[in-house]
Amino acid sequence: MSQKITSRSADYSEWYNNIVEQAGLAEHSAVKGCMVIKPHGYAVWERMQRILDDMFKATGHVNAYFPLFIPKSFFSKEASHVEGFAKECAVVTHYRLKTADDGTIVVDETAKLEEELIVRPTSETIIWNTYKKWIQSYRDLPLLINQWANVVRWEMRTRLFLRTTEFLWQEGHTAHATREEAIEESKKMLDVYVDFVENWMAVPVIKGVKTENERFAGAVETYTIEAMMQDGKALQAGTSHFLGQNFAKAFDVQFTDKEGKLDYVWATSWGVSTRLMGALVMAHSDNQGLVLPPKLAPQQVVIVPIYKEVEELQDISEVARKIKQSLEAKDLRVLYDDSDKQRPGWKFAEHELKGVPLRIAIGARDLANGTVEMARRDTKTKHVVPIAELETTVVETLDLIQTNLYQTTLAFREAHTFTVDTWDEFKEKIEYGFVVAHWDGTTETELKIKEETKATIRCIPLENPQEDGKCILTGKPSKQRVIFAKAY
Amino acid sequence: MSQKITSRSADYSEWYNNIVEQAGLAEHSAVKGCMVIKPHGYAVWERMQRILDDMFKATGHVNAYFPLFIPKSFFSKEASHVEGFAKECAVVTHYRLKTADDGTIVVDETAKLEEELIVRPTSETIIWNTYKKWIQSYRDLPLLINQWANVVRWEMRTRLFLRTTEFLWQEGHTAHATREEAIEESKKMLDVYVDFVENWMAVPVIKGVKTENERFAGAVETYTIEAMMQDGKALQAGTSHFLGQNFAKAFDVQFTDKEGKLDYVWATSWGVSTRLMGALVMAHSDNQGLVLPPKLAPQQVVIVPIYKEVEELQDISEVARKIKQSLEAKDLRVLYDDSDKQRPGWKFAEHELKGVPLRIAIGARDLANGTVEMARRDTKTKHVVPIAELETTVVETLDLIQTNLYQTTLAFREAHTFTVDTWDEFKEKIEYGFVVAHWDGTTETELKIKEETKATIRCIPLENPQEDGKCILTGKPSKQRVIFAKAY
Repeated sequence: MSQKITSRSADYSEWYNNIVEQAGLAEHSAVKGCMVIKPHGYAVWERMQRILDDMFKATGHVNAYFPLFIPKSFFSKEASHVEGFAKECAVVTHYRLKTADDGTIVVDETAKLEEELIVRPTSETIIWNTYKKWIQSYRDLPLLINQWANVVRWEMRTRLFLRTTEFLWQEGHTAHATREEAIEESKKMLDVYVDFVENWMAVPVIKGVKTENERFAGAVETYTIEAMMQDGKALQAGTSHFLGQNFAKAFDVQFTDKEGKLDYVWATSWGVSTRLMGALVMAHSDNQGLVLPPKLAPQQVVIVPIYKEVEELQDISEVARKIKQSLEAKDLRVLYDDSDKQRPGWKFAEHELKGVPLRIAIGARDLANGTVEMARRDTKTKHVVPIAELETTVVETLDLIQTNLYQTTLAFREAHTFTVDTWDEFKEKIEYGFVVAHWDGTTETELKIKEETKATIRCIPLENPQEDGKCILTGKPSKQRVIFAKAY
Repeated sequence: MSQKITSRSADYSEWYNNIVEQAGLAEHSAVKGCMVIKPHGYAVWERMQRILDDMFKATGHVNAYFPLFIPKSFFSKEASHVEGFAKECAVVTHYRLKTADDGTIVVDETAKLEEELIVRPTSETIIWNTYKKWIQSYRDLPLLINQWANVVRWEMRTRLFLRTTEFLWQEGHTAHATREEAIEESKKMLDVYVDFVENWMAVPVIKGVKTENERFAGAVETYTIEAMMQDGKALQAGTSHFLGQNFAKAFDVQFTDKEGKLDYVWATSWGVSTRLMGALVMAHSDNQGLVLPPKLAPQQVVIVPIYKEVEELQDISEVARKIKQSLEAKDLRVLYDDSDKQRPGWKFAEHELKGVPLRIAIGARDLANGTVEMARRDTKTKHVVPIAELETTVVETLDLIQTNLYQTTLAFREAHTFTVDTWDEFKEKIEYGFVVAHWDGTTETELKIKEETKATIRCIPLENPQEDGKCILTGKPSKQRVIFAKAY
């Protein structure tokens, strides 16, 4: 709280870093590229995990756990996968240290692994190698498994939550008897992500498919949801892949169908990560700090007593505890901050910084009037509320905040989405948000546009209207518009 | 289900492996020493996690996440810690692979780390290195943090759950202003473990302290809980360490107390791991498979329809679904297994193998009588229960099973605990269970006894009665008996 947050308009990137660190979400660790997720950040992530996990189970999935390490040779088995993943990764080469003659700790060269182990960047290979043992017949299908895990992708330039060498995520890996069922599964899980990001994180997203160039290494089709941040950039919030029979073929996973015929198994994988924490911060926060949607806030309401003498505090505490109790009976998460270490002004700023959606202040005068002062984090409006009406008002206001955050973010996105038809306009508008434009469908053009503007095709929207047009760069014929943006 | 479980008396070790694999708890992976935790095993572990996590939060702790990797030099900072942990570990030396001229994937030697990274075997060092930034004053204390994570300790001889190179665990790391408060914390968390293992896992434990020789590397005192398995061997179910100021001094973590004086911070750490899964299997299971205490069973009740014609199934299903609903309304976890892929006999055996505490079978004749057949997994007794009384009977019976498992395990331990006073008797009884005997208090004697009998001192019980006696091996004077056993 002694530090100051850089204003969002002055330096968006610094503003983001300030909030992540000062609100107690995460910080850089002593290990290059790895972050420490601090208690407040982890509490939000835990809420995300719990809700997503419930959604996965409601759609028939179970959890399991596969090894952290993957033998190097596994990556070579799926040709395009190795290009995408086996390059920038942590390689374990030895399994012992020893004390050298000079007393320092050194690697024991006699303890060298025959085959190096890779710290998993994603688990398709180790999981499909296991599925080979689990799947023989159509009776073993579908196999609907999810894993919560840490993964490592070596990064040179890192940003807290958005790009770190180690991050936390979930990865679903499912196996199916038919192509149709696998495609249906990958779309279903994309919809679970849409539900979570829109209705819990209060961030609107666009559903679409990735171009070939942006596809997951080893996928036949990559479905994605794309969100807009407050600087107009896109953030890929989750992906779901239809993997065809690629991994089944690479790991020789065949099954006997009802007619007794052998065929390769069809696969999907899908994941979201602690990157969502970055999206959450960037979508809603302001110059006072973090703004959390009530459904994800670890504390939804904080009650702060205002008093001079200790005797006053006793009366206030009695009422505050009753309020806390009555709100908790409504399944709300409530903190009564009666710590005497800090003054009310400090507490107000601290809970604003941490994004608590509602603050209730109670002083002696309030007690006399039978009212409290309720302050919204999102709009920063204050309301005097009779204690008798507080329970209902709090419940309603939290709903309003949740809706308001979504609507505000949606309105921002709409105001920063531009349908353009000329290259000059493209180059101008791409600095401010999403650009919806025609593209000739070639990777060559896609890469040229990226080279010139740093913008990528975020997705081809699902159920995209078809219309004749000309590619924004080459003028070649195009059947549909796609969404371009600079991205995190 | 096509396989057969080796009988417990014929080959205890094989019996254990059979149950773990056949009940779908875990299996060996393609990576030496690492296991795959299968869906049924992971579902039990999830219940354990959820319950422990609630207990940690109820005692004021919050979760956070620290990096998987630890710089090699960190281990050298605490002298005894490095001896215990930095030796058999996974060492990351490179951060990139490349495609060689012959098309194979090889380590890119140009991407060698300046300082090797160790995959965490435990996180004291990286956490105390972080705490240095977080702690300045007594206002920052106590710091009560827990982490759920995977850790790696390179093992040559592994056993599923009991000893694997990678395992899952939680590790609490707390920081305190005084020695007394830290000791109190380490004892409090030991009691949380006792509560969990006894009241949820239904496994009685002995609380005690470890001898100097068995102490955690870097601890001043290690508190432990020791459980007896069905072969009379001990299994250390959880430990809680009072770390004194060792790590604070190693990482220079000082704080200003209320009087403005600088002092080093006092520390604890405590943990339980997927090893508890091994304890759970070994404590209760039998020759038919896994036996799960109702409080931890992912499914507490399974309902199996008995029918010949599909028309019969419809009537049975209607009743079964009502029963399922009414039990779920009591917060019970119920599976209705109406799959037509397998016959009832197969299902009975399968759910027995998987340890479901109660089975309810419903056939057409039962419907006519308004009854069902209820079978207990622990005692294998069957009861005809009127449907009208089923809800109450199920709730009561699940309680009875939970209690029965605890009492049976306790009676077994009592029958296999021997107070002995001669070396001959010691050598005889140590083959069958715990031996309570006098010891002269020296590491030398402790190691000699281990060499001759493979038995270790499991603990010196807390509140141990003091009595004059003579060391079982050396005859030297002793003030108290300690607990010896062979151990996992």
